[in-house]
Amino acid sequence: MTIKPLLDRVVLKVEEAEEKTKSGIILSSAAQEKPQFASVVAVGPGGVVDGKEVKMYVSVGDKVIASKYAGTQVKIDGEEYTIVNQSDILATLE
Amino acid sequence: MTIKPLLDRVVLKVEEAEEKTKSGIILSSAAQEKPQFASVVAVGPGGVVDGKEVKMYVSVGDKVIASKYAGTQVKIDGEEYTIVNQSDILATLE
Amino acid sequence: MTIKPLLDRVVLKVEEAEEKTKSGIILSSAAQEKPQFASVVAVGPGGVVDGKEVKMYVSVGDKVIASKYAGTQVKIDGEEYTIVNQSDILATLE
Amino acid sequence: MTIKPLLDRVVLKVEEAEEKTKSGIILSSAAQEKPQFASVVAVGPGGVVDGKEVKMYVSVGDKVIASKYAGTQVKIDGEEYTIVNQSDILATLE
Amino acid sequence: MTIKPLLDRVVLKVEEAEEKTKSGIILSSAAQEKPQFASVVAVGPGGVVDGKEVKMYVSVGDKVIASKYAGTQVKIDGEEYTIVNQSDILATLE
Amino acid sequence: MTIKPLLDRVVLKVEEAEEKTKSGIILSSAAQEKPQFASVVAVGPGGVVDGKEVKMYVSVGDKVIASKYAGTQVKIDGEEYTIVNQSDILATLE
Amino acid sequence: MTIKPLLDRVVLKVEEAEEKTKSGIILSSAAQEKPQFASVVAVGPGGVVDGKEVKMYVSVGDKVIASKYAGTQVKIDGEEYTIVNQSDILATLE
Repeated sequence: MTIKPLLDRVVLKVEEAEEKTKSGIILSSAAQEKPQFASVVAVGPGGVVDGKEVKMYVSVGDKVIASKYAGTQVKIDGEEYTIVNQSDILATLE
Repeated sequence: MTIKPLLDRVVLKVEEAEEKTKSGIILSSAAQEKPQFASVVAVGPGGVVDGKEVKMYVSVGDKVIASKYAGTQVKIDGEEYTIVNQSDILATLE
Repeated sequence: MTIKPLLDRVVLKVEEAEEKTKSGIILSSAAQEKPQFASVVAVGPGGVVDGKEVKMYVSVGDKVIASKYAGTQVKIDGEEYTIVNQSDILATLE
Repeated sequence: MTIKPLLDRVVLKVEEAEEKTKSGIILSSAAQEKPQFASVVAVGPGGVVDGKEVKMYVSVGDKVIASKYAGTQVKIDGEEYTIVNQSDILATLE
Repeated sequence: MTIKPLLDRVVLKVEEAEEKTKSGIILSSAAQEKPQFASVVAVGPGGVVDGKEVKMYVSVGDKVIASKYAGTQVKIDGEEYTIVNQSDILATLE
Repeated sequence: MTIKPLLDRVVLKVEEAEEKTKSGIILSSAAQEKPQFASVVAVGPGGVVDGKEVKMYVSVGDKVIASKYAGTQVKIDGEEYTIVNQSDILATLE
Repeated sequence: MTIKPLLDRVVLKVEEAEEKTKSGIILSSAAQEKPQFASVVAVGPGGVVDGKEVKMYVSVGDKVIASKYAGTQVKIDGEEYTIVNQSDILATLE
């Protein structure tokens, strides 16, 4: 079963706190509310959103920082994901 | 009796929890509020919505993930449906 | 006395619950708040609304589903009507 | 003393309840809040409102239905009027 | 000391209640909150406001009706004025 | 240390109440909340703000009236300033 | 590990209060809430944001004043940063 985001949506998988510590990232205290550090699982094709052409800047596998309160959480095959608009992604980590 | 959505509206039928388990999808705890996993029952023709041309990306029969709090619930011939704007559909499942 | 809606307004007459049962439609529990199933009584000519050209898609006599909380209720010659913007009409029933 | 509305403003005079009964119109229970049935007393010239060209569709003497909560009430020479934007007028009565 | 409004701002001087009675105008009960009947003291030059060209329709000396809750009150040389956007002026009185 | 406002920002220095009395200006009772009478300390270059070209109309040294609740207060080298958008400046005083 | 802001995002590092005193800047009392004086750590490439072309005006190393309540705080490798939109930066300090 594959999840295919529409338009400018991006599917994120929140990074587990222990993985983060390994790569040197420490989650802020508010991390339990909503994903902030996440990896990109699926990227929509972009297109005309609200009458404006949106290009996609993130790719599957990117480590990203997303707005704390953005997105919709879904559970597919027992795994939790967050679907955000690309505009809710603030930065990538390299 | 057929329901024909106007413009960019999409009629959804929420997937029953037991069907979902079969196909490996488990609903999130908030599922009882509003449909999140649904199948597309009818699709509007698209057109100019609020001065902007909207094309339709979903088709009848698509399995979709919709925003949790979006849409209007209606009951026709004893069946419950949710009418959303296409922009409330986040992703399709394949 | 005739009511002539301006621009993109549509005058609706809520369907009585008993009529609905006959045609197989059962109103949702929230139906007593505002009309959801209604028939179109009068349709404005369309035109430029908020700087955007609006075309009319519904016709007098159409059975429609309208947003639950939309519109203004008026009483003319003892009959109650609801005036909505066409954009508050979600679908037609055939 | 004449009141001359600017741009797309329309000056309304609320119809008295007894006049309405004569012409067969019965005011809704919320009528004491704000005018709904009214006659047009003065009409602005239209023009560019918020960057958009607005044409006037109502004329002095028209019987109109206005949004219940719209407009500004003023008292001139002891008479009460309501100044609304033309977009707050929903329909005319003929 | 002269006050020169920028862009589409208009400086108003609220009419005193006693002057109004003389010219036949009676203030509404809410008049003590904010000016509604006023005379124009200074008019901005107009120009591009929020990306849209605004032309000025009122002139110094005009008697106007302004929105009850609009504007900023300032006291210059002991006199109280209200600075509004021209769009807060509903009508002129002649 | 110089403060250089970006785009359409303007740095204001609130006029002290005693200076004002000298030049005949008396502050309104709400003056302790936020600056209303101020002198312009620095002016941004203007440019494209939210997709719209903004030209600057105020100059360093201008005496201005600003919206009471607008702007961000900062303290630099012990001096308090308020940074506003030019659109929060209502008028100049000459 | 490098943080790369998307589009018009800017990564800020709040200036410590003691450093500020040295360079003559004294933080306002509200400084503990959110960064106001900060240095630019990373700058996005700009681009089309909400259908409008945004150019970047700040550079890495700039000392800036940002809106008090703007931005998202993140902790990377034990260091706290704030990611803002460039439009939340009010001025630079030189």
